[in-house]
Amino acid sequence: MKTTLNHHWIYNTCLLIAGALVSQAQTTPEEVKNNYRVTAEKIIEAATATDFAYERLGEMVDTFGPRLSGSGNLEAAINWALEEMKADGLANVHGEGVMVPHWVRGEESLEMTYPRPHSMAMLGLGGSIGTPSEGIEAEVIVVNDFIELRQRADEANGKIVLFNTPFTEYGKTVMVRVMGGIEASRAGAVASLIRSVGPFSMQTPHTGGMSYQEGVRKIPHAAITIEDAEMLHRMQKRGVTPKLRLKMGAHTLPDAPSRNVIAEILGCSNPEEVVVLGGHIDSWDVGQGAMDDGGGCLAAWEALRIIHNLGLKPRRTIRLVLWTNEENGLKGALGYRDQHEDELDKHIMAMESDSGVFSPEGFGFAGSDAAAEYVKAISELLEPIGSNRIRFQAGGADVMPLHRRGVPIMDLQVDGSRYFWYHHTNADTLDKLKPDELAKCAATMAVMSYIIADMPVALPR
Amino acid sequence: MKTTLNHHWIYNTCLLIAGALVSQAQTTPEEVKNNYRVTAEKIIEAATATDFAYERLGEMVDTFGPRLSGSGNLEAAINWALEEMKADGLANVHGEGVMVPHWVRGEESLEMTYPRPHSMAMLGLGGSIGTPSEGIEAEVIVVNDFIELRQRADEANGKIVLFNTPFTEYGKTVMVRVMGGIEASRAGAVASLIRSVGPFSMQTPHTGGMSYQEGVRKIPHAAITIEDAEMLHRMQKRGVTPKLRLKMGAHTLPDAPSRNVIAEILGCSNPEEVVVLGGHIDSWDVGQGAMDDGGGCLAAWEALRIIHNLGLKPRRTIRLVLWTNEENGLKGALGYRDQHEDELDKHIMAMESDSGVFSPEGFGFAGSDAAAEYVKAISELLEPIGSNRIRFQAGGADVMPLHRRGVPIMDLQVDGSRYFWYHHTNADTLDKLKPDELAKCAATMAVMSYIIADMPVALPR
Repeated sequence: MKTTLNHHWIYNTCLLIAGALVSQAQTTPEEVKNNYRVTAEKIIEAATATDFAYERLGEMVDTFGPRLSGSGNLEAAINWALEEMKADGLANVHGEGVMVPHWVRGEESLEMTYPRPHSMAMLGLGGSIGTPSEGIEAEVIVVNDFIELRQRADEANGKIVLFNTPFTEYGKTVMVRVMGGIEASRAGAVASLIRSVGPFSMQTPHTGGMSYQEGVRKIPHAAITIEDAEMLHRMQKRGVTPKLRLKMGAHTLPDAPSRNVIAEILGCSNPEEVVVLGGHIDSWDVGQGAMDDGGGCLAAWEALRIIHNLGLKPRRTIRLVLWTNEENGLKGALGYRDQHEDELDKHIMAMESDSGVFSPEGFGFAGSDAAAEYVKAISELLEPIGSNRIRFQAGGADVMPLHRRGVPIMDLQVDGSRYFWYHHTNADTLDKLKPDELAKCAATMAVMSYIIADMPVALPR
Repeated sequence: MKTTLNHHWIYNTCLLIAGALVSQAQTTPEEVKNNYRVTAEKIIEAATATDFAYERLGEMVDTFGPRLSGSGNLEAAINWALEEMKADGLANVHGEGVMVPHWVRGEESLEMTYPRPHSMAMLGLGGSIGTPSEGIEAEVIVVNDFIELRQRADEANGKIVLFNTPFTEYGKTVMVRVMGGIEASRAGAVASLIRSVGPFSMQTPHTGGMSYQEGVRKIPHAAITIEDAEMLHRMQKRGVTPKLRLKMGAHTLPDAPSRNVIAEILGCSNPEEVVVLGGHIDSWDVGQGAMDDGGGCLAAWEALRIIHNLGLKPRRTIRLVLWTNEENGLKGALGYRDQHEDELDKHIMAMESDSGVFSPEGFGFAGSDAAAEYVKAISELLEPIGSNRIRFQAGGADVMPLHRRGVPIMDLQVDGSRYFWYHHTNADTLDKLKPDELAKCAATMAVMSYIIADMPVALPR
């Protein structure tokens, strides 16, 4: 009874502070929408009135640079983020340790040695082995895809295979990056190259993850630019067989310690119920990791900062999670899942931004139909900034492990027209993002997460 | 009398072969347009039915690479072009020698050494001196433009000056590239950097020409990317003073021999009257020089090939000129002007393509009002491929010296929306161009040049 009274007192305090006149009786999606309209407007107004998140993102990416798992850059950025979150006044700020892969690119180069000398822009793929220090020099065989390689497998022995596979959809084209080293090795190749996975290039190689397979000899695997892949292919069609010299110092060190970054706004009546939102703080070791996914981290972080600064006190806990090691291991997401195993049934929602922070369009959602009704109703409050679209399909590498344990998930969706231009490249830098678009992303995440955390009924599973 | 008869015979032959039923009496612009409509259609049909020019451009740029004045690449490409033009059956194929500057980039690098290590993409500017072999390490001062540098001149002494000047129009922004080394040196800087002259970057440095000034100490002058220029500027605004180490092996060798490439379709009745068309065969030493200006060369060359293959015999001579050394000296254009001094009064028109060979939109024209009437009328025959716009202002570095001697000029104008993305960069490669657009450029130049060369009256000056 005491508990109930206390609970009720806190509940009322919450309401007073939040300024939202809702009761537990008003719980239909339509009622939620109507009762939170004013609060949503306040959040949007506050979030879009400042460039704070953009400035902070700039400070992060300029100061620490790209943040590959195992690197000093990543841990320094994590230390900085923890201090900043404390300064923001967020609660329960701490790192949660996980061990992460530690791949190191080393020095690398690719030279055409025949028919004329030509230095090629390239990036080794994450996890690849290196070459001997003198490099690997061999003729190149260019194929469109795995099918053509199998047809011409007898030509590939002792050669460097180049997969010149044009970009269609990321999910399809990326297979050549993930599996190309295995397929080329099976055909007897001494090294494997791919046309970078992206639709547009200005001599822009794209790195990314790749696999080896037990029982298949490991060979070096790297990405070259669309420009050079096309040129080598044209040469082959003219009857010329170019020769390349590939040097890669890539190697893998023992797993290294890293941390997921956690900060909270504690729920005032149901603190054990948690709405998670975040991005991943690690990046590839190129560019600045500004779009992928510094911006996602800052959108979620800024959402908490805005909610906190407005003095809003949600019923449930809003938890910011900046996952580590999304890019080459997912150890952060898996670690979070395992370390929070006991409270996953109280995870009301997990929301990620990992598609860039361009002009926001809405969310993908995966959960029950009953939950979808609430999400849809809340999304209508985002109409003023155009991010009110809900698609009933969601992704997000870091939230998927939670979804597989029953947690409803959402992913922030944005104008993705240039996402794969910059993805995993040296061109993933702050200037590709815009302050007002990032602010709208933060507003979108803040409105959705706050209302889900505060509405009288828990989002149904 | 014999001459006249002969002349008349040739004249009639011309007409029969050309299949155009025109007489010297029919000379109004309207009559020209009407009488050449069928011929224009034939030319357009032939030119747009083939990818030959694109394939040939690919062969040129893949085989020889970029073609800086003084390089073996350029001379090899010129040798190849001469052989190919002979094989095309063009007349009077030959090179015309000129001496050209011979600047060599050498090894170069730029490292940020404070506040954190970071390698920057850069390109020395053409004509710059190098650094001592150990490089120049200094703090950087970032300014928007010359005005800010003058205001802060007391801070620049002993520093590396970076001009972070955003792109507006090429003609304006390029001044920082041309004059930046002089302005920075005047302020006591030890080296000068510019934000690359272009509106969009994927870590893309742009090279280009620059100047020194008598009496002002020469300092190394190079371009960095928009990304890094913006980052350095942000750091400065946060109170951080980054330190850079610049190494450039750039040096200038004695002038080297090069050649303008000439090929003709001889005029059958007035061979001494000449319509010139061309592009420049040299390029900067980056990318492939496919857009700037391999494509322009091929558009003009293909125009002659199409006219020749159709068996068209124009009254006047159509002369293809692939100028050398447009980029860093203009010695080809000046040499052509001087070597053809005696026949400049018989140059009916000089036409250049040096704005890329994207979707053609028409021509710029500079000449008399009387000539403009003909040009305008002929352009209407280009409506089927959308390249029928005439603007009464023309450029083209290689034809301007002729224009200053009274020759009417035209420049092919195209969709230029991405021209300055690729200009003078490693991304100036064949894949940026499209076969059908290049074919339309060739068709446009062929129709305009053939009719001007063949119409009964000479284009009035």
